[in-house]
Order: sequence, then C-alpha cells, then structure tokens
Amino acid sequence: NNYQLIWSNVPFFTVPLARAHGKSFAHRSELRQAKRIVVKLGSAVVTRGDECGLALGRLASIVEQVAVLQNQCREMMIVTSGAVAFGKQRLRHEILLSQSVRQALHSGQNQLKDMSLPVLEARACAAAGQSGLMALYEAMFTQYSTCTAQILVTNLDFHDDQKRRNLNSTLHELLRMNIVPIINTNDAVVPPPEPNSDLQGVNVISIKDNDSLAARLAVEMRADLLIALSDVEGLYDSPPGSDDAKLLDTFYPGDQHSITYGTKSRVGIGGMEAKVKAALWALQGGTSVVIANGTHPKVTGHVITDIVEGKKVGTFFSEVKPAGPTVEQQTEMARSAGRTLASLESEQRSDIICTLADLLTERKDEILSANKKDMEHAVSTGRLSPAMLKRLSLSSSKLNSLSIGLRQIAVSSQDSVGRVLRRTRVANKLELEQITVPIGVLLVIFESRPDCLPQVSALAIASGNALLLKGGKEAANTNRILHELAQEALSIHGVNDAIQLVSTREEVEDLCRLEKMIDLIIPRGSSQLVRDIQRAAKSIPVLGHSEGICHVYVDHEASVDKAIKIIRDSKCDYPAACNAMETLLVHRDLLRTPLFDQIIDMMRTEHVKIHAGPKFASYLTFSPSEVKSLRTEYGDLECCIEVVDSMLEAVDHIHKYGSSHTDVIVTENEDTAEQFLQQLDSACVFWNASSRFADGYRFGLGAEVGISTARIHARGPVGLEGLLTTKWVLRGEGHTAADFSEQGSMTYLHENLPVAQVLPGRRTTS
Amino acid sequence: NNYQLIWSNVPFFTVPLARAHGKSFAHRSELRQAKRIVVKLGSAVVTRGDECGLALGRLASIVEQVAVLQNQCREMMIVTSGAVAFGKQRLRHEILLSQSVRQALHSGQNQLKDMSLPVLEARACAAAGQSGLMALYEAMFTQYSTCTAQILVTNLDFHDDQKRRNLNSTLHELLRMNIVPIINTNDAVVPPPEPNSDLQGVNVISIKDNDSLAARLAVEMRADLLIALSDVEGLYDSPPGSDDAKLLDTFYPGDQHSITYGTKSRVGIGGMEAKVKAALWALQGGTSVVIANGTHPKVTGHVITDIVEGKKVGTFFSEVKPAGPTVEQQTEMARSAGRTLASLESEQRSDIICTLADLLTERKDEILSANKKDMEHAVSTGRLSPAMLKRLSLSSSKLNSLSIGLRQIAVSSQDSVGRVLRRTRVANKLELEQITVPIGVLLVIFESRPDCLPQVSALAIASGNALLLKGGKEAANTNRILHELAQEALSIHGVNDAIQLVSTREEVEDLCRLEKMIDLIIPRGSSQLVRDIQRAAKSIPVLGHSEGICHVYVDHEASVDKAIKIIRDSKCDYPAACNAMETLLVHRDLLRTPLFDQIIDMMRTEHVKIHAGPKFASYLTFSPSEVKSLRTEYGDLECCIEVVDSMLEAVDHIHKYGSSHTDVIVTENEDTAEQFLQQLDSACVFWNASSRFADGYRFGLGAEVGISTARIHARGPVGLEGLLTTKWVLRGEGHTAADFSEQGSMTYLHENLPVAQVLPGRRTTS
Repeated sequence: NNYQLIWSNVPFFTVPLARAHGKSFAHRSELRQAKRIVVKLGSAVVTRGDECGLALGRLASIVEQVAVLQNQCREMMIVTSGAVAFGKQRLRHEILLSQSVRQALHSGQNQLKDMSLPVLEARACAAAGQSGLMALYEAMFTQYSTCTAQILVTNLDFHDDQKRRNLNSTLHELLRMNIVPIINTNDAVVPPPEPNSDLQGVNVISIKDNDSLAARLAVEMRADLLIALSDVEGLYDSPPGSDDAKLLDTFYPGDQHSITYGTKSRVGIGGMEAKVKAALWALQGGTSVVIANGTHPKVTGHVITDIVEGKKVGTFFSEVKPAGPTVEQQTEMARSAGRTLASLESEQRSDIICTLADLLTERKDEILSANKKDMEHAVSTGRLSPAMLKRLSLSSSKLNSLSIGLRQIAVSSQDSVGRVLRRTRVANKLELEQITVPIGVLLVIFESRPDCLPQVSALAIASGNALLLKGGKEAANTNRILHELAQEALSIHGVNDAIQLVSTREEVEDLCRLEKMIDLIIPRGSSQLVRDIQRAAKSIPVLGHSEGICHVYVDHEASVDKAIKIIRDSKCDYPAACNAMETLLVHRDLLRTPLFDQIIDMMRTEHVKIHAGPKFASYLTFSPSEVKSLRTEYGDLECCIEVVDSMLEAVDHIHKYGSSHTDVIVTENEDTAEQFLQQLDSACVFWNASSRFADGYRFGLGAEVGISTARIHARGPVGLEGLLTTKWVLRGEGHTAADFSEQGSMTYLHENLPVAQVLPGRRTTS
Repeated sequence: NNYQLIWSNVPFFTVPLARAHGKSFAHRSELRQAKRIVVKLGSAVVTRGDECGLALGRLASIVEQVAVLQNQCREMMIVTSGAVAFGKQRLRHEILLSQSVRQALHSGQNQLKDMSLPVLEARACAAAGQSGLMALYEAMFTQYSTCTAQILVTNLDFHDDQKRRNLNSTLHELLRMNIVPIINTNDAVVPPPEPNSDLQGVNVISIKDNDSLAARLAVEMRADLLIALSDVEGLYDSPPGSDDAKLLDTFYPGDQHSITYGTKSRVGIGGMEAKVKAALWALQGGTSVVIANGTHPKVTGHVITDIVEGKKVGTFFSEVKPAGPTVEQQTEMARSAGRTLASLESEQRSDIICTLADLLTERKDEILSANKKDMEHAVSTGRLSPAMLKRLSLSSSKLNSLSIGLRQIAVSSQDSVGRVLRRTRVANKLELEQITVPIGVLLVIFESRPDCLPQVSALAIASGNALLLKGGKEAANTNRILHELAQEALSIHGVNDAIQLVSTREEVEDLCRLEKMIDLIIPRGSSQLVRDIQRAAKSIPVLGHSEGICHVYVDHEASVDKAIKIIRDSKCDYPAACNAMETLLVHRDLLRTPLFDQIIDMMRTEHVKIHAGPKFASYLTFSPSEVKSLRTEYGDLECCIEVVDSMLEAVDHIHKYGSSHTDVIVTENEDTAEQFLQQLDSACVFWNASSRFADGYRFGLGAEVGISTARIHARGPVGLEGLLTTKWVLRGEGHTAADFSEQGSMTYLHENLPVAQVLPGRRTTS
C-alpha cells in the first residue's frame, strides 16, 4: 500500500529479487554474480586511528561503493561498528562543556586545556552514538538516493525462533523495497563480552567485534557474499610480520591446519582466529566470504567494488579447492625450475627447443583439432573481428614455419647464458668475471595469436628464464595443448615446471601486481594492451612500447625516387604497425617542386588521408583538415604533413612531438644525413631506408622479444639479449679488502683479460 | 563571557592569533608559515559528477585536512559551493514522492520509473540545500572536535561599509574562538548572474562560481593563503589539451601576456580567466594563491595539506619572480645542452673533464673558503653528526685526489659514447649499427658529501649525459662554487648548461615526479634516501640498491685461515657499508670444530654482537638472543649466525632471505664453489674473497656510479656503462620492406661485420 511506501521513504525502482546462488562460489571470478551482499565494517574501519571519532572519508567511500552496487540491482546490507566511537566523541564534548561551565562558575577561569576526561563507559557511548551514527549513514546514503533502515540486534535474538523469524521477515521486506538495512549490535543491552565463547555455545557478541553477528546474519539471510572489512590485509599462513608470512589469496577449510595464528590483536576478541571461525561458519552455511583491509588508504576507495569484481583483494574463502596450484605457487615452481634450466648446458637447452619444434609437427593433428574448437567457439559467439579470427587460426604450414623458427632460435642462442663479457685480474690470484645470466621470471601476456606461445617459450628456454604465460580466453584450447607440448619438451631435462600457463580466470591486473615474484613483463599485443599493462605494473619493469609516432623527413637534397619509395613503404606497407610513418616532414624548398606533387599524387593513389600541420596549412590556399595534435598515432592510411625550414628544425620537431621510436631522413647529402643520425635521439634512426625496417627479424636479431622505447635496459628491437642480465663472479684465495689498505700487502692490478669474442647473433641468412 | 562560549559550542583550546605575514609569499616553501588560510571549494569539488548530490568522500577528506591544519594552530576558513546540488537532490526526492502519491491516487500505479522531473530552479535548490549542507559540514567537523559557523554573504555586502565591518568583526571573533567559518553566497537573494562583470564594476557573484567571493574575503581578512580548488589542475600556458600546453608551477603577474586562455569551460562563469583575475586580485591584496584540482582522486586525500607543505600541486601565484630559471626550465636547458655535449668529439669531453680537474686545484682557495662557511654553519647549528661533518669537510688533499680521480675518468671514458657494439649487413648496401648513446637527463641526489659533485659531473660529461644535481642544504656554499667550476669547464666547448644545480628549496619528492623530463635518478647517500626515492619516483627508473643483506657461507671444506680472514673483513672492515656481511651461514659439520670456536673468538675480539638463527639456537645449550628476522640488515658490528646442512641449503637460504646483492662461499672444494657460483642468483657471487670487494673501484670499473640490485639495465657495481644506452643506425639507399616481400627483389643477408674490440674500461693500475 502507498502509505507504507511513503512512510518508508523508498525510491520506487524495485528490482527482481531472485538470488543467483544457493551455495558459496568456487572462485573469485564468480563473485560478480553475487546478488545479496553483507558488508561488515569492523570498528577499525569506521573509527579514526585515535578511536575517538569516525573515519569520515572511509565511511563516505564505503557508502558510495555500497550505493553503486545497490544500483546494480544487488541487495546490500551493512553490519557496522562505530556507535561507541561516535558516542565517545559526543560524550567527551558534553562532559567538557559541563565541566567548563562548572569550572567557570566556580573559579571564573576558562583555560581548560588540562581538564581531565573521565573514563567513558562503552555501553553509554554506544547508546549516545547510535542515533548520530545512523543520522550520518542516512545523510550519506541520501546523496545517492538510497534509503536506509536501522536494525539493532543482539546475538541472543538468533536463538529465539520468534525473534529470528521477525528479524528475517523485516530484513526481507526492507530488501524488497530496495532499502539498505544497517545492522548494529544493541550494545546498550548486551551482557558483558566473554571472549572466545562466540559461535561455540552460549554466544554473546562483544561490543568491539561483530564478525560472528555478520556471519550469522549472512547465513540467516542466505547472502551470496560476506565482505568482512577490518584493519588486517587478510589471512596469513603464519603470524603477519614473521619472515615467511604470506597473505593467502584463497583459503580452503581443509587447509586450516596449515595456518599458524599469531598472538591476538590488541582488540583481543576481534583476533584473526575468531574472524576465520566466523568466516568458515558462514561458508558452511553457503555464503562466500572475503576478509580484507578496509583501512588501507590506497585501496579503500575501491575495496568493496574490487572484491565484487573478482580482484585479488584480501583473502577469499572457498569450499572448492581447485585442482591446480595458485598463480603464486606456479610462479615459485617456475622460478625454481627456471634456476635448474639456467644451470643446464647450452646444448641441453637447445635440445629442449628442438624437441618442442619436433612436437609441433609430430602432434599437429592434436594442435589443429584444439585450434578448431577455439575457432568454432569464436565464430559461434561472433565476438572476434575477421582480423582477429585470422590471427587465432593455425594451419599445418603455420606450424611448419613455427617449427623452423624454433630451430633457428635453438641455433642462434648457443652461448646466451653464462657468456663471459668481461674478465679482470683484480690482483694476484683474484679474478673477476662478468657473465650473462637470465633475468629470472618473465610474464608474457599475449592476445589471440596462439603461435606466440611456442615462440616465447623457445626464447625463454634459450635464455634460461622461467616463464609465466597468460593467453587470451579465445585461444584457451590451443594454448593448453601448446603448453603441454612445451612441458613435454622441458621434461627431457626434468624442468617441466619452468614454463607455466596461467589460468584464463586470472586478471591481468592482478598478475601485474605480483612484485618480487616476477622480474619482467612482456606484453605482446595491441598498443592498448601495452599501455594498460604499463599502467598496472607499477613496480615491475615492462618491456615494450606503447607509442610509435615515426617520422620521415624529406630533405631538399633528397632523391625523388628514394623519397617516394620510402614514404610509400613507411606509410602503406602495414599502416597499423608501430613502425609505420605517422608524420611526413618536408623541407620548405620542396613545396613548389615536382617531387612534392609526386608525393601527394602517390598518397592519393594509395588512399592516404592527409592532415596538415599548422605551418603546412599556412602555405596552402586550400588546405586539408588541420591536425588536432602533432603527436597523433594514426595507425591507419592517414598521416600528417608538416613543413620544416631545415634538417635541424626537423630534428627539433621530432624531439618535441615524436615518441623516440624510429625516424628516417631521406637525403643525398651525406653530411646532412650523418648529422641527423647523430643528433636525433630515437631508438632507431635511418638514412634512406623505410621506417618499416625497425624490427628484430629484419635487423637480424633472430627471434624478436619486442620493441622497446625505454631508455634503459634494452632499446629498439630487442632480441634474446633483452632477456638477459649479468652477474659478477669473483674468485680469490682468501683476499680481503684490508689487504689493499695502506697498511696492507697487496695492490690492485685491474688488468683486463681477453674474452672470447662471439659475434653477436650468429644467425645466418634465412 | 561563558554564555557565549557555551552557545558557540567551542572547544576551549584557543591559540595565539598572530599572523606570520602581511604580504604574499615569494616561494612555495614559505607556505608552511601560512597562518590564516581560506580554502575555496568550487562546485565541481563539492558535487558528484552528475551534479545531483555531494561528493562525500572528497568533502570528508577536505574536512579532515582542514581540521588537521586547524590543529596546527592555523586559522582556517572555507568558502563552499554545493548547496544547489544538495538542494537539487532533496527537491528531486520530494517531487518524486509527491508525484508518486498523486499518481498513485489517480491511477493506482506505482511503477514510476519513467516519471519526468521538472526543471528545478537553482535559487530554490540553494535555499533547500543550505541547511542540509551546513548540517553535514557540522557533523563532519564535529568528528574532529572542530566547531563551525555558517556565514551567508553576497558580493554586495562588501560594498556597504557597515556590512563589511560587521562581517569582518564576526569572522575575527569566530577565528579567535577557533571556529571554522563556512562561507557561502546567499544564493536565494542574489540577482541573476552577469558573466564577466565580476571584479570589474557592478559586481555580482554567480551562483556557480565563488572565486571572486573567496578572493575578496581572503583580502578583507588579510589571509596569508587562498587555496582555490576546482576541477582544473591549475593554470596552463596554452589551452589545456593542446600539444604544447604546460601546467605552470608558478605564475607571476608580469607573465600574464604569455598565457593563452582556451574557450571557457562549460560552467561559463567559472572559466580560467575569471579564476586568474580573482587570484591576481587577491595577490595584489597581499594573499598568496594556489589554484589546484580538488577532484583528482589520487591527490584529493592530501591536496590541501600538500599545498601548505610547499609541494608542487597546482599553480602557485607569486609576486616575486625569482632570478633564476625554474627546475623545469633547467631540465630543458640541460637536455638541450646535453645533446650538444653528446655530439662533441670524445677528446673534447675529456678536455672538459681535465679542465674541471685543473680548476679544482687552481681554485682550491675559493672552494675551501666556501666549504669553511658551510662547516661553520653546520657546527653552529649543531645539527650534523661528527661523521656527517667529516663527510662535509673538504681539504687540499681531498681536492687533489679528487682531481686525480677526474683525470682517470677522462682517460678511461675515451670511447664511451658512439662506440659501435654491433654491425650487420642487413642486405646489399643496407648496413645496421648499434652504437652507444647517453641515456639523456640524469638526476643525481646526494647528501652532505660535496666531493660527489665534481665526480658525478665528470661521469655525466664522460658519458655525454645532461645532469641535474640536487645537493644537501648543509653543503650549499661548497656545491655552488663547485657547480660554477663545472660550468666554467663546460664552457670551453659551449655546453655550460648541460649540468644544472637545482635550488635547495626544491623538494626531492617533486623532482622525482618530473617524468618525461628525467630519464634516470641516481641517489647517492644512505639506504634510507634510496628507499625514499624509489618510493617517490614511480615512473622514472632509479639506479641503486636499498638493501644489502650479504651472506658468507663457510663450507665444511673451508680453510680455517681464509674463513677467519674473510669473515672478519666482510663484517668488520666497514660494517655500515652495503657490502658488509649480515648473516654468516655455517655448515653443520663445523659446529663442534676448532674452526667454529675460532670464528666465535674472533667475533668476540672484534666486538661483533651475535644473533642466533632459529636452527643455530636449537643446537646450543645457551644461545645468544634469537634473531627477529633473518632478513635484517644490521649495518653495524652485529650479525646473524645460522646453520645449514649443505651448500645447497645455503643457496636456498640466501635466495629466501637475501637481497641479491653480494654473497660469498668459503671452501677449498672447487666443485662445491663452482656450483655455488653458478646456482646463486645474486648480483655478485664470490669464492674465497671478502664481500667488501663488491665495489666499482675495486672491480676496476674506474669511477663508480653506484651498486644496483635491479635485474634489468645494470646489476652489481655500475661504472660508466650504467649511464649509456644504445641506438640503432641504419644506412640504406632507398630500401623498403616491400623489396624483401615474396614479390620483392631483395633478400636478407644478416651478415655480422666485425667491430673493433675495445677492452672494456681501459683503466690501468692505480
């Protein structure tokens, strides 16, 4: 009836109340489906550090997230602490005031700085704070057009069937009307807390902790998910802070014996053991649970929505233990096996690669049938573009050339690991070597192309690196069989685990956060993928480039033929490539010459859309559309033309607007060319050659890891060397630094010893 | 009187109301002294994106920051927008409700999703929202024991002298009582807005914008600082979004002609030009102004306190234009001159370094007298420890050996830039070279030691890099003269600007944020400095190491003499060094042998405090204190001893608890040693030699840039090579990629051509 609707102040947009699940979710990725969610805010989340006021910013952010989820037609409930803190603040104020009045009346003073505050009783604080806390929640939720309702319960209420039924139906009615119930313990009436008796027998709820209340409520309401926020990151396998403590991403009830709890937190009753007990209790009742930190300033803004989106925040409680290892375990297995791989003989690593090459052709039926499945699925869902479908598909001939490529890697990589780069006789019988070693654990993230998998695997094997592979969902079947073959090849020297295929359920963003576990990330895919990963991977280096704004500068002493050929090839050979030309710089003297007309004609014939730079536009009577930005990467049959007065102005232009990828000069004047090559600060600088040559294969580096526009580590097209670093090996006979001090007996020789010169990349003509 | 005190609900902690300044501040670093601060919250800051509700999280954070500053005895005032949005939300709700009742009465329906909302009048919204907004502010500030007062004004009030006086005295009284006045325009009564007439004549205040109100109020109240928060980052020199737009860190009234304003923002009246006008007006009145973005999610949490701490947020308005260039201009000058430096002949760079070496001895009187000033100041303030004083002091002999060191750098760096690392004949007449080039712009941050300046300068010059130097305040005079000498040396080839000394006022944290301007940061100082910088420099690589947990493993086949010598040297030679031993691993079989007793005796003699690892402790009847963590870097005459069962267990232990810096095995068994050297994954691995050899000078690398524990770029002690990267130079005759396609006429040769082998680091015995 309408009276009730108006009375309850409900917005009238009701949503269907069908629950998605009746039992807990097996994996985080399923949490998106959670319909009914209980968010429990521990007192540490709601109160400030000094426990004498509310953490308003956190509360506001939590309210916002709950409102957002509510707007996604989820049923949200909040179990909150905080009334005590709110009340403390209020009572303290009141006491100060009344004291001050008293003091003022008695003494006439009003300097009350030293006035002592009486100890406040928690129950009184709770009572005094309850109304204010609710008013605040209501004011905040009103900002999101969301209504709230206040529910005060004690744990005892769950033991009286009548009360339980009433509570249950009240909550259901509220949810039905799209109201967010805000539940708190009725602290003013509960008996004093008895630690450790929670959830075991008589059951009382402590004032400071309401984990068990939230768990009970979640199960009673058949909630899909309970998010328990407090000031701990989650569940650790050993007491947090100890050397080996690891945050558990997922916890299974069966693993309980593997946990060592630390001494309880200062709160006492809210210790981790009690939290886990409550969580397991909820889990058993069919509600998934995530325990997470709601006070961490960096994540607070999104902690609730992140959890619902399946991101790796806190510890997820799951009843279903997946068969395979976690990605963290995979990384450790890979690192360990990778170390063995690196210690193999060079020939043994080549063996593995050749075996993989053999397997690709021997087992091609299996591969192609798996690939067929992926193709059929992709076609049936219709989600992939024709270009992407083409990249997804494998064929006999693709596998053959892949196999040939692997053999080349096997040959070209002979001495990559353990090569001596430098030898120094530091002193008599003290010799130093700098040798190449693998970087460690690589994470390669690739989109649709499954042929990437064996290629990257071969590069990792050749360089002795451990490898985590994260492929696209669309190629799941193909990737699985290809990975099996890679492991089969690795098994001939017992290092199967060095290459791991990461489950398609893992989020790329989560992987990018595995710092200290992964040493280098290599994204292979669109520039958008690279950009996303560079953004996500804050403390792990990323090898790649997100931009390719390449220039061709045509000097006034350019050869007509070469200019036309190079411009056409740079722009039209493969316009989507990162090494395609985006801006054509033309010397001013060329403007009224036949060469210029020929360039324009060629572009017209090739259907290249021209945008005019501001200076170029000013020279023309009728100009094509002016560029929006001289920093545009068109990636298509489009380009910008700009006029410069000299080679030096071209260099300045490129420094200002380029991306330091690849830039070309076309001229017949050798001096001009050499100046350009010397002065231009890009990874690749070319004279009279197409920008399209910026490519590891074309450079003769053999297999290409990627192109880097970074200034440190590797720059330009990167071959195997990009996967190597060095270590220093010193061999002495008890030498000490003190031996070389003024009082010591030894002197430094620092004699450079010859090293065997290996011509880099012994690859022969293909 | 007490009545008033109680009525105004004031906490009784009043503070002295002396203003620190009567005129605007010249530099951001002075803003810490700001006593009276007006914080202006534009409507974009207070409202959510949809303008139909408040951005609660932002507001809460702003309230918290204002409360924090208030607690620092500052006088805070808030000029707020937002009543309209708050009121809109309320009125919308009311209208929905009344409509629904009407509709329900008339039609019996209650599906009101499509119900249209009437357009709400802004003044009505403002009136309806004012009370709620104030209640919210009050509730929030109460959480921080801070009282608020509501002031509604119109711009006209400033023109009536009586009103102005009243307003002024009211505000002063509030500030005196430590109350935060919250000022808003009395929107319900102001005339309709007239764009562009603000601050020019008739003066009205628009509903959406209160920049001019805030400026007026700040001047009227003689505030020290006005922080104007809106949704723009600050003032740009050209319309934001255009190719060249640069955010101005500091704006001087005289520079106004250099600004191009863009088309006004959608708000119209709140456009940048109006903001700047208001800011300049306030500045003229003696109030400093910062315009900043209060909506940026990452900075909101600290934007106000960061500004008051002098950090580079938004645009600071200053009347006093400093003589020198800004740090951004310095960086650009350095990059440009650095490019010229890199294009010089190798001999010319050596010339510069030798000239600097000469100047250090020729002008030593000037240097020493500047150093004396610094020393005297340091002694008089008593802030430096004796060790730091020693590092700060220069002497004739220090300058001499510095000069000798520079000459060595000049010699050893001969071919560092432009060295050909690889040559490939890609195809007929298409030749590829990979050559060394400088990294670009380096930022070196160093503490007290001024001798660092010429050393680092020489390294930068030798490698053709531009250099920004940021030294400590304590060495300001010495650094200034040393930098002048460096510039004098650079001037012989006209590249004075390649090395810049950054003002001591600049915050390190701000410098670490100059991404895209600085290519590599090299901190030289304590490991705390390195850690701080690694944390601050998120998108600029940092060359350095923050931890050195080095191990010495004594095998059961170790020589007694070597073991004792190496352990003593590794731990005691210089315990604070990063390459000093922190953990001694001992093979189990040694436990009851004389060698072990000798080790313990030696440690006792050397006063090394021993901590026992858990396994070691379990072997002992009476154990020394157990270690807290096996990952401890003591940096003092302390170390951990742990027992391992085998060399492999030692390797595992080091992998688990080490920092991949330097680790040593002591054994006479060559097989064991080689396995250790091969398997251990640290930057430096030593056999029978002290860990103290991990050092660029001792390795014979000549000048040392630092020690890196990173896995990419450079690892271990880094010499000049750490300051170099490479570029690829391709020379063709009009070659295109299409020439090599299946239809093309050319084939790849990929023939490796010999390069002149330069023995790395031709340094001879010193």
